[in-house]
Amino acid sequence: MREAISVQEAREAVLALSRPLERESAPILEALGRCLAAPVVSTRRLPPRDASAMDGYAVRVEDCLAAGSGVSAALPVAFEVAAGDVSGAELKPGEAARIFTGAPVPRGADAVVRQEDTERESDCVRIRIRPQPREHIRDAGEDVETGDTVLEIGARVGPSEIGVLASLGRSLVQVYRRPRVAILSGGDELVEIDGDVSGGRIVASNAYMLGAACRTLGAEPISLGIAEDRPESVEKQFRAALSADCIVSTAGVSVGDHDHVRPVLEKLGCRLEFWGVRMKPGFPLAFGHFPDSPGRLVFGLPGNPVSATVCFELFVRPALLRMMGRQDLFPPTVRVRLGERLRKKPGRLHFVRVVLEREGEEWVARSAGNQSSGVMTAMARADALLVFPEDASELAVGESALAIVHSRDFFARDNAGF
Amino acid sequence: MREAISVQEAREAVLALSRPLERESAPILEALGRCLAAPVVSTRRLPPRDASAMDGYAVRVEDCLAAGSGVSAALPVAFEVAAGDVSGAELKPGEAARIFTGAPVPRGADAVVRQEDTERESDCVRIRIRPQPREHIRDAGEDVETGDTVLEIGARVGPSEIGVLASLGRSLVQVYRRPRVAILSGGDELVEIDGDVSGGRIVASNAYMLGAACRTLGAEPISLGIAEDRPESVEKQFRAALSADCIVSTAGVSVGDHDHVRPVLEKLGCRLEFWGVRMKPGFPLAFGHFPDSPGRLVFGLPGNPVSATVCFELFVRPALLRMMGRQDLFPPTVRVRLGERLRKKPGRLHFVRVVLEREGEEWVARSAGNQSSGVMTAMARADALLVFPEDASELAVGESALAIVHSRDFFARDNAGF
Repeated sequence: MREAISVQEAREAVLALSRPLERESAPILEALGRCLAAPVVSTRRLPPRDASAMDGYAVRVEDCLAAGSGVSAALPVAFEVAAGDVSGAELKPGEAARIFTGAPVPRGADAVVRQEDTERESDCVRIRIRPQPREHIRDAGEDVETGDTVLEIGARVGPSEIGVLASLGRSLVQVYRRPRVAILSGGDELVEIDGDVSGGRIVASNAYMLGAACRTLGAEPISLGIAEDRPESVEKQFRAALSADCIVSTAGVSVGDHDHVRPVLEKLGCRLEFWGVRMKPGFPLAFGHFPDSPGRLVFGLPGNPVSATVCFELFVRPALLRMMGRQDLFPPTVRVRLGERLRKKPGRLHFVRVVLEREGEEWVARSAGNQSSGVMTAMARADALLVFPEDASELAVGESALAIVHSRDFFARDNAGF
Repeated sequence: MREAISVQEAREAVLALSRPLERESAPILEALGRCLAAPVVSTRRLPPRDASAMDGYAVRVEDCLAAGSGVSAALPVAFEVAAGDVSGAELKPGEAARIFTGAPVPRGADAVVRQEDTERESDCVRIRIRPQPREHIRDAGEDVETGDTVLEIGARVGPSEIGVLASLGRSLVQVYRRPRVAILSGGDELVEIDGDVSGGRIVASNAYMLGAACRTLGAEPISLGIAEDRPESVEKQFRAALSADCIVSTAGVSVGDHDHVRPVLEKLGCRLEFWGVRMKPGFPLAFGHFPDSPGRLVFGLPGNPVSATVCFELFVRPALLRMMGRQDLFPPTVRVRLGERLRKKPGRLHFVRVVLEREGEEWVARSAGNQSSGVMTAMARADALLVFPEDASELAVGESALAIVHSRDFFARDNAGF
């Protein structure tokens, strides 16, 4: 086991052991937000036939050559074609057919004239413009041809993809299975959300934060409650977690006498890859896996809520996204300018909770409040985590830095009226 | 009713009639992604007491003044304080107490020395550094004081907010109710997803796209199936939709003989505000409301899937977000540079489906494929909708334009290794 490694080393260690889960077949609306585990090849042509893009009249262009510039061509309306029509009627020379949006263009016709460009006179229609060949006709197969690979493996399923899948008659689709994430809390000071907090006890709030973070990503949290600070209690809880794809515990992984997580994990066959990452908040992070169950990961997060949140964002999130077949594993980053001076001791990379404000073309970063790793309200207020590099000791006002976007509504602030 | 209005006029008309729904009490995990309908005021102090931020030893600074620079102070370990301890023991001058992360700092102690900076020798501990007053102590109330407004009305509930709410013992929270959105399709050419598509019939795929789009926002879609092209069938379907907060129908709102939606809506007491927006795709958009049921909105979207998608994004989405109490109603926009020439006739604003690629500091936009409003695959491929202004007829290569971000993973492409 390595100790006190860098953030980059820790991330590489995590990703080296993370892999996509098996595929499963899901109803398309249940696939929303997930990634395709197989390409989608069309067995249909879309549109299935040449169809009218407008309400109007189907014509032969050669019958309308005289129309335009105030002159109109009068044609008898031979029949009507509605959407869904299967009559297969044919337009003869010198005739027009009434047609509606989505209706099949009758054989013989080579253009559709919009209703607005015509004048109806009982059995006849006056065509006031000279149509272009194929005008207002949606070509058969213009969207999809039979055999087209319509969506690639790894594509993320959003509303547009669901529209495409539905139009191909696909009610089920192959996606990567959602990871099941067991969430464990440890500590005699902890109570459940409705528990008695007299005597300085506190709610095991990390379990809720982590459950919500898993749901946000599309993973399935399983909350296993609070273990007591005794090895038997910790072991019992971890045994219950062994069927999960990912185990996330908070607190109990440190150097203190009451930290039973490491010996319990080793007893259960877990190989710890690292303990301790040179970062703040979040130093006492442990990560391991089970060599007998490849792909099953264990994260021992620090107990301080800000530390747990930052460690989840930086390490657990990319692992879960990879399990779900995602390719974009990391949150967006933006270049920011320091709006106030920051100082620290060199030796650990700090993730500073900051709020960002537009000043001209730039984002200016200022502290979101008390940077203690217990102050969750500042985490909730933060737009981003500013990266204060390991070896640096000061970032001056006006200096440039990288910030990891935390608020999911952040980019919507850049809206230029649309 | 106004006709053929501009995009801005249409959006203003929609927003003028959109309002937040009633509030409801929801379990905090069910509130994920929604907006608070009431501020959250704390009835607790967090941390409840001065607590140790580390595993180590609680000391009096005055007893360690000699320590540091290779010299250590030896103190007897008088007792031990674990997290959750309620003994209330007091540290006397000249003593140290073993302490663990999260444990209450005993009365008399004014600093915690990390375990790493000590050496244990049976009943004594050697303190190797000179601690600062209050070092490694998390102050009672440093996160939240009783009476603090911890979250404001309108705050969006994410994992960090859920962590804060849990730590305050709030298992329920006041949020705006989710809008129920009735989704209707009309057209004799349409079948359900598993239906027979012989004879040129097509799947009513818009209903799936719209259902997914509603779910993505946190609204509740109710799919009411396909109405036939007869006034009685359309009326029956709309009557079934009248209990929804928002009615979204596709197709059937145009100028053709088979467009029964407008007369049916008027019969049901709907006041149509506008029909037709000077945009492409999406011109034949209708919008109305029910003066007898303020806040209930009706959108008649065009039947072409790309048109329906664009109209949803531009008009239905902001209305639904406002119903949910959101303040950021519009998607992010980015400045892009044209990677290829675009031309059109003036008179309508075009939303061009484009893919965006980084070239140096800029995003360069190129067509995502066939711009026909029936080609949904190009919509699914698009990163953004490029705004091609109403009066313009050409955008040259290299010219600057605004693009509305469509792909929700777009910004994650800008990741500088974190």
